[in-house]
Amino acid sequence: MKVIVDTMGSDKGSDELVKGALNAIEEYDIEVILIGNEEKINKKLEKSNYDIKKVEVIGTSQVITNDDDPVRSIRSKKDASMVVGARLLSEGKADGMISTGNTGALLAAGTFIIGRIPGIDRAAISVLYPTKSGFSLLLDAGANVDARADMLEQFAIMGSIYMENIMEKSSPTVGLINIGVEESKGNKLVKDTYELLHKGELNFIGNIEARDLPKGEVDILVSDGFVGNIVLKLTEGMAISIMEMLKEKFIKNTRTKLAAGFLKTELRELKEFMDYRQYGGAPLLGIKKPLVKAHGSSDSLAVKNGIKQLIDFKNRDIINMIEKELEKK
Amino acid sequence: MKVIVDTMGSDKGSDELVKGALNAIEEYDIEVILIGNEEKINKKLEKSNYDIKKVEVIGTSQVITNDDDPVRSIRSKKDASMVVGARLLSEGKADGMISTGNTGALLAAGTFIIGRIPGIDRAAISVLYPTKSGFSLLLDAGANVDARADMLEQFAIMGSIYMENIMEKSSPTVGLINIGVEESKGNKLVKDTYELLHKGELNFIGNIEARDLPKGEVDILVSDGFVGNIVLKLTEGMAISIMEMLKEKFIKNTRTKLAAGFLKTELRELKEFMDYRQYGGAPLLGIKKPLVKAHGSSDSLAVKNGIKQLIDFKNRDIINMIEKELEKK
Repeated sequence: MKVIVDTMGSDKGSDELVKGALNAIEEYDIEVILIGNEEKINKKLEKSNYDIKKVEVIGTSQVITNDDDPVRSIRSKKDASMVVGARLLSEGKADGMISTGNTGALLAAGTFIIGRIPGIDRAAISVLYPTKSGFSLLLDAGANVDARADMLEQFAIMGSIYMENIMEKSSPTVGLINIGVEESKGNKLVKDTYELLHKGELNFIGNIEARDLPKGEVDILVSDGFVGNIVLKLTEGMAISIMEMLKEKFIKNTRTKLAAGFLKTELRELKEFMDYRQYGGAPLLGIKKPLVKAHGSSDSLAVKNGIKQLIDFKNRDIINMIEKELEKK
Repeated sequence: MKVIVDTMGSDKGSDELVKGALNAIEEYDIEVILIGNEEKINKKLEKSNYDIKKVEVIGTSQVITNDDDPVRSIRSKKDASMVVGARLLSEGKADGMISTGNTGALLAAGTFIIGRIPGIDRAAISVLYPTKSGFSLLLDAGANVDARADMLEQFAIMGSIYMENIMEKSSPTVGLINIGVEESKGNKLVKDTYELLHKGELNFIGNIEARDLPKGEVDILVSDGFVGNIVLKLTEGMAISIMEMLKEKFIKNTRTKLAAGFLKTELRELKEFMDYRQYGGAPLLGIKKPLVKAHGSSDSLAVKNGIKQLIDFKNRDIINMIEKELEKK
């Protein structure tokens, strides 16, 4: 097993990515290809203990930033780390890639350099969405802002396979994000999707209202990328705002400060819980090779966890399973 | 000034509506028409002190429930309170109506019995959305799940007029709910709307990301009814879930219980703040007469506040202003 680690694009610099990769080598007995700024990678490697036979370094000269246009940048920056990585993947020289870089560019690299799984019209960004009772898999979280019902059905199929085989949730439930639970509710897109999912073979439990999303009663949350992104970002924004308001209230006077001091652990637990980034990387489902997008602020542990996702992704043959499932249609 | 109070459809029964109406008579020197279950209304009136010349009671025999199909129910239940009320309004026998009943049915009654303001293609549900710094006016909050860019522009115009004249916010800012701040972001609908708003004369400040909605940096939040409803309901769901999680953490042991006891006031303040229902009724903008939808659980104070909204709506000539603004286009 050989995994590509794109060391560019992290808020924390490449060291955390290199460290996460080396930890993954030790824990999962894999090989890695580190792509990016060669000098920085080597500097970190020199200071580390690792099996030299298991690490390959590829230096690249160009950088795709978060402000770059996804499709244009992967076409014009042929020597950017994620472009080089996608090419290696597509040539079969590795089994998967993790990147903390520009999500849209990673998706474009996957789509145009590696290609989609036959039968899949669009790849989707799948995010683990934290809830009161654990997490749901939300897709699409932002790749396809104008989608069709058959695409949403494909997202539901991919999400179900991923949740069942990587997250080991048997017969995972699928819910369609909507403005009411009744079949008649929603816009044209969700009504059409409802019909497809209702006829299909997934464990579709119907519409789920936005109000109920934080309860975590459904394993897979399906929506187009516009609504999915709004849901994800608003959840984050609400968590941040409420924590800030709590903080403001708790530093009001000596009484509140003292009392809040006694609740420090509990408040920290709540804050950590609401940080969806800790739940690992976001698989880009629908691409012919395993691709995981890790958050820009991922530390080495998050990177190692993301690499584990790639290993499972490959070992459990997710891509073949998706392809077979779609052949049935 | 004469205001219609639909006394049906409240979670709290008609008494709170009657009480709110009588308080409004006293405070604002208006007349009211109470429509609904005549027996119940009279029973409450008998126990109250009020100026008998200022109250008219109209008994109705049919009831529209929250499960009824909006359009079908207003057509088949001609003697339901909100249908009778809409007819009176349309005949000019009153100046506005408040209802706690089925939102869709109220909108349908407004649209088909009273009619839309010339130039308005669809009426919108406008909700006061609570934020860290006060509130924003969110529209459409659920009436138009499949909308066009020109409708969203009309929502922005109506919202600006309402916010400026009823909420007394001079030159209110308009933001388009989107998945990024850049002009190029979003689905086709929001990109087309961006173009219209950018060319227009409102105080349009561009896209606003869902993550930033709780900060309250924009006065008017524009979206289609699907996204608006998702935003509203998810905000509510997150607030509820976080408060529940806090509660669970705070009753864990004696230490946490004691500390939380000292923070009771602050926690209650936070909870109250997040209850968007307290911010008054939701005006249905775009109908030729003032209509306010109050929450089903409104108490007499909320009802009185909703009646005040209707009075301002009428006195400040909002409907004429909207019509004039649209004539310019």
